[in-house]
Amino acid sequence: MIVKSLLTEKNPFNSTAELREWIERRNKEVTVQVKQIPFAEMDKWYSKEDGSLHHESGRFFSIIGIDVQTDYGYINHWRQPIINQPEVGYLGILTKEIDGILYCLMQAKIEPGNVNCVQISPTLQATKSNYSRVHSGKSPNYLEYFVNAKSENIILDQLQSEQGARFLRKRNRNIIIKVDEDIEVLPDFKWMTLGQIKELMHYDNLVNMDTRTVLSGLKISDYVSPLDDLKNISEYGKGWLLSSTTNHAYINMREHLSWLTNLKSKYDLHVKTCPINEMPGWIKNDMEIVREDGKFFKIIGVNVTISNREVSNWCQPLVQPMQDGICAFIVKKIHGIYHFLVQAKLECGNFDVMELAPTVQCLTGNAEKAVIKPLFYDYVINAPKCQVLIDALQSEEGGRFYHEQNRNLLIEADDDFPLDVPDNYTWMTLNQMYDFLKFNNYLNIQARSIISALNYK
Amino acid sequence: MIVKSLLTEKNPFNSTAELREWIERRNKEVTVQVKQIPFAEMDKWYSKEDGSLHHESGRFFSIIGIDVQTDYGYINHWRQPIINQPEVGYLGILTKEIDGILYCLMQAKIEPGNVNCVQISPTLQATKSNYSRVHSGKSPNYLEYFVNAKSENIILDQLQSEQGARFLRKRNRNIIIKVDEDIEVLPDFKWMTLGQIKELMHYDNLVNMDTRTVLSGLKISDYVSPLDDLKNISEYGKGWLLSSTTNHAYINMREHLSWLTNLKSKYDLHVKTCPINEMPGWIKNDMEIVREDGKFFKIIGVNVTISNREVSNWCQPLVQPMQDGICAFIVKKIHGIYHFLVQAKLECGNFDVMELAPTVQCLTGNAEKAVIKPLFYDYVINAPKCQVLIDALQSEEGGRFYHEQNRNLLIEADDDFPLDVPDNYTWMTLNQMYDFLKFNNYLNIQARSIISALNYK
Repeated sequence: MIVKSLLTEKNPFNSTAELREWIERRNKEVTVQVKQIPFAEMDKWYSKEDGSLHHESGRFFSIIGIDVQTDYGYINHWRQPIINQPEVGYLGILTKEIDGILYCLMQAKIEPGNVNCVQISPTLQATKSNYSRVHSGKSPNYLEYFVNAKSENIILDQLQSEQGARFLRKRNRNIIIKVDEDIEVLPDFKWMTLGQIKELMHYDNLVNMDTRTVLSGLKISDYVSPLDDLKNISEYGKGWLLSSTTNHAYINMREHLSWLTNLKSKYDLHVKTCPINEMPGWIKNDMEIVREDGKFFKIIGVNVTISNREVSNWCQPLVQPMQDGICAFIVKKIHGIYHFLVQAKLECGNFDVMELAPTVQCLTGNAEKAVIKPLFYDYVINAPKCQVLIDALQSEEGGRFYHEQNRNLLIEADDDFPLDVPDNYTWMTLNQMYDFLKFNNYLNIQARSIISALNYK
Repeated sequence: MIVKSLLTEKNPFNSTAELREWIERRNKEVTVQVKQIPFAEMDKWYSKEDGSLHHESGRFFSIIGIDVQTDYGYINHWRQPIINQPEVGYLGILTKEIDGILYCLMQAKIEPGNVNCVQISPTLQATKSNYSRVHSGKSPNYLEYFVNAKSENIILDQLQSEQGARFLRKRNRNIIIKVDEDIEVLPDFKWMTLGQIKELMHYDNLVNMDTRTVLSGLKISDYVSPLDDLKNISEYGKGWLLSSTTNHAYINMREHLSWLTNLKSKYDLHVKTCPINEMPGWIKNDMEIVREDGKFFKIIGVNVTISNREVSNWCQPLVQPMQDGICAFIVKKIHGIYHFLVQAKLECGNFDVMELAPTVQCLTGNAEKAVIKPLFYDYVINAPKCQVLIDALQSEEGGRFYHEQNRNLLIEADDDFPLDVPDNYTWMTLNQMYDFLKFNNYLNIQARSIISALNYK
């Protein structure tokens, strides 16, 4: 039923065009006003003496300073602000089988930082503050289905990391459950097939990061049975399936694990908190925490007003990037099987030193200006159209990031692309990547975002 | 060759009896004098104002205070001293195939805290301080073989955790390499088969923790070929092999991962450093950092003199437990296949909140006196002899711990033992446990110690 869901956009509830119209309409109906205000005017937020920003409840998230020391890369000691939210949130998709096809109950969710105000989101996005007993308000929609899910109804249940350069060791519980009973479809929710969600990922900033990370864990080949009608599958889809099931990898798992053990042992990462007021290269004024050279990102305080069916208004800090980024995987057929060129990347907020990242992951402006460009940057930027399998702008989480988007690229290497790659890179089949993905904190969120967009149709 | 090595104690270089005599002789030849001294008299060590203990080089390890908050267990907020050593060390075994049998080059190593001064240790035990370029002295024996090992000569290469109640997120690189060239066997080293090492593990405190953790990662069934002569294998050995290869588990991996994701999401663990001088329930005097109620462990300063071929002398802090501990796995055949009763256990120094632990893991005295005894404690303590498959005292690392030993038990459950177990427990086949073991920080060191002792002969 998962495979059928993947290979069809036929949906008696909503066609793909209707879903696009729905999001467009919701975008028109909703007014989101995000006004930058001085930190001191953020209602319910305050600055501590060291410059860090906190919610008066002590919950949600805070903006703190960290001091980073590492022997990885060109810069070995720096300080920066980071989002601190030491709790595991739920990112949950509720699904139901209807006439042999799996449908996902997706939400049109408004977030203040979204490029499009409204994006397609999981059924449930809830922080521990939201769903734990400390919270006095109404519990999030559909939460009870996830909390009470029986083991046999859990399709996927993983702890996965967020952006390591922006979050301090943040993780979420990515979960997909299947319900048997009838479900009330609330106004902002609609049933979609996996094929429809994949199709919508072709458009810029329509499917949010939380949806993408949850779906990235679904290893499609696990659900293919000999009875499945695969006539709708594309040549590429067949390629992904083969790469997901093969045991004939160019480099075996023992070697990958040893490669990663070696890198994690080789590089040190020491992170400790430091005052925001004592970060060389950064200044905090009334309005923002920003670098003197204008690079990377800044922290702003905003007043958000969302006028929808009801009006809601609140204040919060947001992270605003100074430029867009790029996340690109290079894939290459080796002995007829697709292999992904994976990078082991150290980021300061990583839970476990290094995570597996796309071939290229960097900020566009920085890379263009850099004397030494990131490896493979020119290759992916200049790839001819026939080698470009995926190319879409995708947003980061709009609850924390203001208009942050990354160009997601999947590039098929040409025949002359070398198999020998630098130390921090390796070739993996999808089967191997899913093996890592099953366990916590191996594939980073940027890698997962691209994997989730692999199309089979 | 690994299987042959496992099933034989025939060793043209040294019989098992000779190895035992060798260790006994080395123990007699060596005088280890460990004298408790005031912290202030520890040469090259100093106390910071907050009471923490540091080496003047800034390297090796330090003793710091931590503040722990968690919603797991009965006590939800405490402070304690802990060993801080934020670097990855090498625990390496060098092996060589001789006449179709794999031999491990093991070392008779003296550590100040060992119950027997001399224990059987890996070829290489080196901290990053030892082997990195900051060190000015001679590099450790055989280090170059590990640093220069080619990928195809690496049998195993994993990052694994140390004791989560005593070390702050400490990990070591557990590595086994195979060399083809002839190796000079230095005076304190001897070749042993895997079967011999397993046999020696039956004796109390003879095989050190570092050896046990490295060997625990070796999934024997991976090396069994149809050509192997398995006539020496015991009924239990066959049982372990079946449990290591079967896909017919009582509970599948998807369910295990979801179970662990749920527990890791459910329980919070917040650890921050705090002054040693501000730990309620603990006092630091001139001689020790100790609890007022005398429980758990204390930190002492020692002057060590080892008289051997040469005399060496140094000072260091050691952790001294106030009592012995117990680590016990219960195993049960379910549908004819051995399953281990695994506990998800939170310890304050864990890298990732919870690790998979033995069925019972506790301090003996505390458990005996406790109003509510640890689950399954009485069962494993009172098991009749016919159910006891392993029973030996095993030491913790003598470079950090003074005379710390745990009773390692493997208990076969009786037929009436229930399959339904409490929330924090689950049944796993060896195949599943090795799946977790391959990835970092899943099986804790106590669980690995017992796994390493599984005998096939």
